[in-house]
Order: sequence, then C-alpha cells, then structure tokens
Amino acid sequence: MSMNADLGKPRELTGLQQRRALYQPELPPCLEGKAIRVEFGDSTTTIDPTCANMVAQEFPNTFGQPLVHFLKPNKMDAQANDEHPPIRVGVVFSGRQSPGGHNVIWGIYDAMKTQNLQSVLLGFIGGTEGLFANQTLEITDDVLSAYRNQESLYLLEGGFDFLGRTVDQIHTTEQVNAAMSTCCDLDLDGLVIIGGVTSNSDAAQLAETFANHNCKTKVVGVPVSLNGDLKNQFVETTVGFDTVCKVNSQLISNVCLDAISAGKYYHFVRVMGWKASHVALECALQSQPNMVILGEEVAFSKLTLKEIISKICDGVQARAAQEKYHGVLLISEGLIESIPEMFALIQEINILHSNKVPENNIPSQLSPWATALYNYLPPFIRREIDTEQLLAHLVEAEMNKRMKEGKYIGRKFSSVCHFFGYQARGSLPSNFDCDYAYAMMSVKRHSRSPGAVPTGKPVIHPSPVDLKGKAYALLREKASSFLLDDFYRTPGGIQFDGSGANVKPITLTVEDQDYLGDIELLQDYLEKVRNIVKPGCSREILKAAISSMSSVKDVLKVMSAPFYAELPLFNLN
Amino acid sequence: MSMNADLGKPRELTGLQQRRALYQPELPPCLEGKAIRVEFGDSTTTIDPTCANMVAQEFPNTFGQPLVHFLKPNKMDAQANDEHPPIRVGVVFSGRQSPGGHNVIWGIYDAMKTQNLQSVLLGFIGGTEGLFANQTLEITDDVLSAYRNQESLYLLEGGFDFLGRTVDQIHTTEQVNAAMSTCCDLDLDGLVIIGGVTSNSDAAQLAETFANHNCKTKVVGVPVSLNGDLKNQFVETTVGFDTVCKVNSQLISNVCLDAISAGKYYHFVRVMGWKASHVALECALQSQPNMVILGEEVAFSKLTLKEIISKICDGVQARAAQEKYHGVLLISEGLIESIPEMFALIQEINILHSNKVPENNIPSQLSPWATALYNYLPPFIRREIDTEQLLAHLVEAEMNKRMKEGKYIGRKFSSVCHFFGYQARGSLPSNFDCDYAYAMMSVKRHSRSPGAVPTGKPVIHPSPVDLKGKAYALLREKASSFLLDDFYRTPGGIQFDGSGANVKPITLTVEDQDYLGDIELLQDYLEKVRNIVKPGCSREILKAAISSMSSVKDVLKVMSAPFYAELPLFNLN
Repeated sequence: MSMNADLGKPRELTGLQQRRALYQPELPPCLEGKAIRVEFGDSTTTIDPTCANMVAQEFPNTFGQPLVHFLKPNKMDAQANDEHPPIRVGVVFSGRQSPGGHNVIWGIYDAMKTQNLQSVLLGFIGGTEGLFANQTLEITDDVLSAYRNQESLYLLEGGFDFLGRTVDQIHTTEQVNAAMSTCCDLDLDGLVIIGGVTSNSDAAQLAETFANHNCKTKVVGVPVSLNGDLKNQFVETTVGFDTVCKVNSQLISNVCLDAISAGKYYHFVRVMGWKASHVALECALQSQPNMVILGEEVAFSKLTLKEIISKICDGVQARAAQEKYHGVLLISEGLIESIPEMFALIQEINILHSNKVPENNIPSQLSPWATALYNYLPPFIRREIDTEQLLAHLVEAEMNKRMKEGKYIGRKFSSVCHFFGYQARGSLPSNFDCDYAYAMMSVKRHSRSPGAVPTGKPVIHPSPVDLKGKAYALLREKASSFLLDDFYRTPGGIQFDGSGANVKPITLTVEDQDYLGDIELLQDYLEKVRNIVKPGCSREILKAAISSMSSVKDVLKVMSAPFYAELPLFNLN
Repeated sequence: MSMNADLGKPRELTGLQQRRALYQPELPPCLEGKAIRVEFGDSTTTIDPTCANMVAQEFPNTFGQPLVHFLKPNKMDAQANDEHPPIRVGVVFSGRQSPGGHNVIWGIYDAMKTQNLQSVLLGFIGGTEGLFANQTLEITDDVLSAYRNQESLYLLEGGFDFLGRTVDQIHTTEQVNAAMSTCCDLDLDGLVIIGGVTSNSDAAQLAETFANHNCKTKVVGVPVSLNGDLKNQFVETTVGFDTVCKVNSQLISNVCLDAISAGKYYHFVRVMGWKASHVALECALQSQPNMVILGEEVAFSKLTLKEIISKICDGVQARAAQEKYHGVLLISEGLIESIPEMFALIQEINILHSNKVPENNIPSQLSPWATALYNYLPPFIRREIDTEQLLAHLVEAEMNKRMKEGKYIGRKFSSVCHFFGYQARGSLPSNFDCDYAYAMMSVKRHSRSPGAVPTGKPVIHPSPVDLKGKAYALLREKASSFLLDDFYRTPGGIQFDGSGANVKPITLTVEDQDYLGDIELLQDYLEKVRNIVKPGCSREILKAAISSMSSVKDVLKVMSAPFYAELPLFNLN
C-alpha cells in the first residue's frame, strides 16, 4: 500500500518498522503515571539582557511568567490529582520533517488519555494550512498505530502522511487570526506547534496574541529540528538531532575507512546545519575525521577564505610529510556564510539579482574588494555555492601552486566531495529521539539566544555552538592528533536492539547538559553535608559548614539577580 | 590508539565494535566440526561453450577437474577423519576492501585449527607486494582479536591494517614467479587469494602455472567484492554485497522520504557497480524508488542517451499529471558505458587523449556522429562524466523544452544528485556477510561468464544482471506502480541484534539462488515419489511413475551433455 494512501488507511511496514512500532519509550519519573506535581520557579527572561526590555514590550502578556518545574509526585499529589477534567488540544507540524516528530504526538496523546479518557487530541491536516482552515483529524490509537517510533514525513501537499505540513509559518495577521478563530471554534485548551526555530518564534507570537485577545488556548512550542540549534539551559537538544548525527557519523566513519584504504583522496564532507554547527561538532566527535571547520570558529576568528584554504593546505602538507595522501575534512552547511567577506559578497550579489541585473553584468557592478573575491572563486561556483566543492577546488589550486613554487614536495592533491543531508533526514528515529520526543512537554518560549538583534521584531535565533563549551574544547584538544594520526572512530549505524541502542550524543554527555542528573548530584551533596553536620559533630566542622554554606547562599543570590540568570547554566562553572 | 598503530598492536574498538567482536558466525552443517565429507562431481567447464576450447588450451593442467562437493559427514566419516595432517596455508588480500573480508581469514584459521592445531596460517603483509617479497605475519587468536566481524580496511601503504593490499595483481611473469618462489620457500600447501573478478582471474592463472611447475601449493580464490558480480550456479554472491546493499538501501529510502516530504525535487542516485548492476537491482527492490535504470537493460535494448532521457521525462510527466513533482531515480555506476553510442564516444576521446590531443582540439577530431553527441552533452560533463549529473542536466533541459513547446504543463523540474559509494564500503559487515565470509571455502575457478571474449587471454568477466531472472522480472512487474504510486519502502539500517539481524538480500531470495535449499527440495520430491510407489500401489500409478522418471532421467542426461551443462541452473526452469 502506498504511503500516499487515502487518509486513515494504515501503511505497510517492513519487518524493522514493525519491530520498532513495539518499542515503548521511557519516561522521566516526573511524567510517569496519572499524578503530576508542578512547581513554579523564576520568571522567564531573555538570554541576552539587552533584549529584555524589547521582548517585554512586545510580549506584555506572556513575558516574565514563572517557569514550570515538573517534579516527581509524592503520595499526597497522587490523591489530590485523582481527577483531571477532560481537555481539548490541537497539534500541528510546521517546518521540515525530523526523525521522532511523530512521537511528540504519541506522547501528548498518551499523557492526555492517562489523565482523562474523555480528553480529545486533534491533529491539523496539512500542517499550518489545516490550522488556518480548521481541518482536523482526531488522533486515536488506530491513527497512531502506523507512526509510533517511525521515520517522519510531513508531506507538503497532495499525498498524506499522518498530518503533513504546508506553508510552515503562522506569521501574517491573517494567518494569526485564522489560527485564533480555529482554536476558538474548536474550543481548544491547548495548541501544540511542532517545529524548529521559526516555528517556535511563531508559537511565542501566537501565545502573546491569544493572551491579548483573551483566547483561552495555551500555545506550546516543541523543538523538533535536525540541527540541534534550539537549545538552552532548559532544553538539552532538539528532537531528531541524535538520529541525524548517528546516521551521518556512520557515513563519515565509512568515508574515513575508505579514505585510508585507498590512500590517495581527500574527502570534503558537508553536513547540515545552516546557522549553527552542532551536527558537525557531534559528528566530528563520533567519527573523528582529520579536520573539522565550524562556522562559529570562522566567524569568531574573522577568518578570510584565503586563510581557511591556507590552514587546510598546511594540514595536507603536514600529512604529506608523514607519507599520508588521504584525509577527511568535515564542514557545516553554513560555513560559507560565516566567512565575513563571503557573506558580504553574497549580500551584494543578492541585491544585484533582486534588481534583475543580468548574470554577465554582475562582476562589473560589485564593489572593488568583492570583485577581487569574485575573481578568486572558480567560475562553476559563482552561481550556486556548494561549500565543499569550493573548498576542494581552492585547496587543489593552492597545493598545485605550492608544488610549482617548490614549497610542497609530494603527490598531487586529489579530492572527493560529499554532502550528507538528505540521506539522514528520513531515518527511523533512534531510541533517544523516540524517548525524548515522547516525553517532550514544552519549551520555554522567551529564551533569546545571544545573537538576537535588538531592533525589529523579536525572534528566536538558532543557538550557535558554544566555543567556550566542553564539547568544543574536547574537539580542539584532540585536533592535532586527529589531523595527523588517523584516529578514525567507528560508531556504526543506529542500533535498535541490544546494549548499544541507548547511546546518547557525545556533545550532550560532555557538555553536562544532563539537567536532571545535575540536580540529583546537587541533592547528593546536600545530603552528604547534612550527614556530616549532625548533633555531636565538632564545633570547628559546624563553623566551617556555616561559613561555607553562607557563602554558597550569597553566590546563588547574586546569580539570581537579572544579569546572571540569563547566562546558560553551564557557563557558571 | 590509532588504526595506523604498529604491527600487531590491537586497535581501540567502540562499543558497537566490541559487541560485534563477540558475534559467532553460523556455519552450514557440512562444515561444522572436525569431520569432513567430500564428493567429486562433474568436470568444471566454461559457462560460454564457445570459450571452452580456448580455456582448455590455456589451462591444460587445471581445466576440467572435478567439482568438489562438501556434504554433511556421517558417523563413518567422523571416525575416518579423526586425524588430519598439519598444513601450511598463505592468505593475501588483493583488490578494494569489502565488508566481511577479514572474516574469510578468521574462517580459514578456525577450520585449519579444528582439523589440526599444528597447522599454520600465514598472512601476507601489504597484499600482493608481501606475497612477492615473502613478508608474512602468522595469524593467531591475538592477531584476529581486533578484526572479527569488523569493517575491512586493506591499506595501500604506510599504515597497517591487519594485512593490507597493494598492487592488487599477480599478472606479469615476474610477479607470478615471485609468488611461486614465496610459496615454495614457505612450503605452502595452499594459497588463498581474497578479491574480486580480476584477483580471481589471477588466482586461476596462478593455479595453472603452479600445476605446470609441479609446485605443490593449491591456489584458491575467494570472491570478495561489493559489486556482487562474481556469481554463478555455485557461488550465490560475493562477500560484502549484502552489507553494501543494506547501507545503500537505507540511504536511498531516506532520500525517498525526503523527496516526498519536500515535494519538489527529483533525486538522481548513482550506486556502485561498474560493469554489472547487481547493487542497483538489490537496492531498488529494498527501497522501491520511482525509477531504476540498469546498465544491462540499456545495453540489451541498445537505447540511445536521448531515448533514455525521453523515457525519464515521460515518467516525470506522468507523475506531474498526478500533481507529483518529486521522485527518486536509481542508476548504476556503469550505466553511461552501457549506452553503445556513449561507449564509442568515450573510446574515441580516450584515443585522442592518449595521442595527447589538446582538450580544445578534441571536438574537431571526433567522427561526425560522435561530434553530434559531444555537442549534445553539457560542457561541464565533457571532461569527467558523473552519470547522475549528466542525466539530471539533460532531463531538466528536455523538460524545459517540452514546457516551452506546450507539451508539458506543470512546475519547473528541479533535481538533486547523489553518489552512494564511499559511504557504504567501510561499513561494519552484516551478519550475512560475517557468516558467508567465515564459511567461504572456495570458488570454482573456471566458470566463465557469457561475456568472455573468445580471443586473447581468458579472464573472468563480471557476471551481469540476468534480464531473464526472477529478481529483474519482479522489478519490471512493479515498475509502473513504483513510478506512480510512491511505494517507498523503509528497510532501515543494518541491525546486529534482534530478529532483523539475519535478513537476506532480496535478489538472492527471489532468484532461487539458495542452492542447498534447492537440493533439499529435490530430495523431498524423491522421497515423496518413493512413498507413493511402494509395493501394493496400483499398476497404473507404477506405470505413470516409471514413464515420468524415465523421461526425467533422459532430460537430465541430455542436459549433462557439454552444451547444456554450461547454462546457469536457474535458466533451466
């Protein structure tokens, strides 16, 4: 049966898909069972304090609401929570598909039905278009049966895959009003928007508009995106990131082994991640290729294209000195726009394009420095820039030049280019993504990344790789041995059975992004101090403990003041 | 620790690699335990009868030897086989790496040690160079420990991965003599050559030369190659084929889901397989993309490039009529050379290149028809032909033309190109390849494929996809529904645990290539007839049985005559 089958008809699953359908995602203890315990914490604020005022102005109804903490329920909660009124919730896909996306719906459904069997979950057919036009499908066990733990397809049109997606934005006044009217018509208590950075910006805007118009529907954004770029101190990563990194890492590792076996090619591998290089960083740690260039480091160091090429060529030359004529270089999709001069050139060309300047006249109308850079680029790249091919071409030209000048003595440089994007996106989701999506409850909507522009309409910016973070430090610490020693690592493909099925992303592990784990660790410390300072302990110990704890309290008090609270937790170490 | 670590040092394995190291491959019953039972069958011959004379002339010592059948030993064998003398065997990698390659060595080692602990297995370091220079490493449990069920890397030089590979041929008189001298010096009873089509041709030549010089070393070729192109009635497939098809099928399936999700791109995917399209056929059956073009069908139908483009465009147009503007097209690496006119053009260009004709002068020196074809090709493709890009470009041009002429009304055609080769080759081998490689004993050396040229030196030709075979028939039967209905299938990645770990290639399953299974089936029929025709059965039944069996015997007798014996079994249905 076709995946484009009529609405409601189940699709045919392969053996592996059938076995995956039986997988039951794990829930954190605070979300298990019928009872829930909720505590309210600090007020939400922006990550970048300079934006706080503007965001507060734009979001008068929703900014500064307290954070909600879900805690493990105690016995009293269990009794108090015995009866929950039925609720009505709508859910909509917005944005490109990402492995695990369907499990968000399954998780909401199970959570709602656990609380009250009369609760109703409605999916909007065709994504945001369905939201505007009030076209829904009631989610039932039958509807879910073919999509549990399965790969995600949100069809653009025509065909049908579960709920689908369409214009991927709820942006214009018309669209916002249509959404609000649908939510009122359907008497929804909640609207869940599943998507990436843009969709979550839209969700925040919608929440504000709804609140302003006294529409009772609460809006919740769920971070589902391959790029892993919607993360902050409360959100570990996005749904789909783990799967995509595992599939890509397997492929990069295979390319590494191919490179070392053939011994004569440099492989230039580009992975997805437009404005942030989280995928490249994670894949680099998993597969350990010879070189990695992240957009964030290029932007931070303000490297020119020539300097990048020169650095790569130095690496090639250092390897040639060890008789190694193969290698693997990993770059992220957005690298080229991270190079300040390239970004400016692209801007100039785009303006000329929008002014309908013919292709041949473009060089003559560029600024002098842009002309110089334009002439440096190979002709085939001037129209559409494939970063990996651009770099491979320029490195080859530079190596040939060095050879001619006698600066490089070795074999001729040869390259092979790859772009790993489409291959990973449609994958069956890993256990991590199945669990994470199923347990996903909400995302703090008003955290703004440091890149937020303090003028214009506030939006959520993709969170970049933290160049001061532990994962990046680990990569740089190993960079020279990766470059020269071929420490290629074989993570293998995604496993769904056996002890390897629950491996977490390396970046999350090293970045101490394990929030719940950290809280447990702190509780542990408090318990230990309590055990030491019992009646009967020496006066000295008691004094020391009081002094230490008093200073801890002071530090935390200072840090809870507006400025510090906006820094991500892991920078406070 | 680096994979380039010093000889003998173990490399560091990831969690998945460690778990894979514990996998114990399954053996067919005839190879289990210490006892062996061997029977001699018909004489070897060539697949193409017109070559038989020439091969017999070139291989006077080895041609026509009886086939060896390994059978399940009975009790008497077990007693008779109690003591085997120790033997000395050398093993060498020749050709590109293929997943499962290392397991061939492990299987030989275990089989030899089971027979007699004093037997010695020597690996040649650096492939054929090590064979010529008599550089060996004794295979021990310690040496094997880091390579059981692991991905294969046969390093070209410098670095070390187990045994490595180098020039990949044993071809010149000098090389053959060096190999013979090494085998004599080491007093080898056997030499095992692990590789693809060329390496197995070399193995056959070496066997003949050794026999001619009364060198006691028996030469055995083992078919290890990604392409699956060394197959005949005795050899199901090559080691590595299953793994590569599974990895590629997962990626193609992901691309399919990406295509349907975005709804606006045609993906042109090229997979490996230079002279034969087995990988493309298997991957097509596993992932079910919209269109597949095999080199064999193009060659058989003598299609021109224009006709191929036209066929693809018709498919695009048929889909557009259903409002589908996405699709996935699968082609095999060697497609372009299968197009007769392209092959001729490439030959002409190669001759001009070898005569050092400058690039710019090439068009003027081509024959008239070649010039016409050359001018039809896009400029970027004239130097180095990436088939998928060539097809995508020409299809786009043709669709634009049809649109201009009003023959096609629909959205503009857009494409994305992929080459899946390097990504799959370095993969951890599937259970099938681990088992198959471990149990692999020998390959019938003198089967010649139908493509063998009856002049010059005989070599083993890659066996093409059988256009009369069941797998191809299955593909064609489903072609129109694949084209229009998006029957995309999700095989998922290679699984090493759970019930999905032992899935076999689809082509092998549908092609009845299950040799042992077929023999069992036949035994079953014989048993049934024996049970029916017992004393007491009616005279009519007995008569009918005698008449039928007599005609079966006659048919088999005729078929055992030289001409028929050379056809592959599955064509006799």
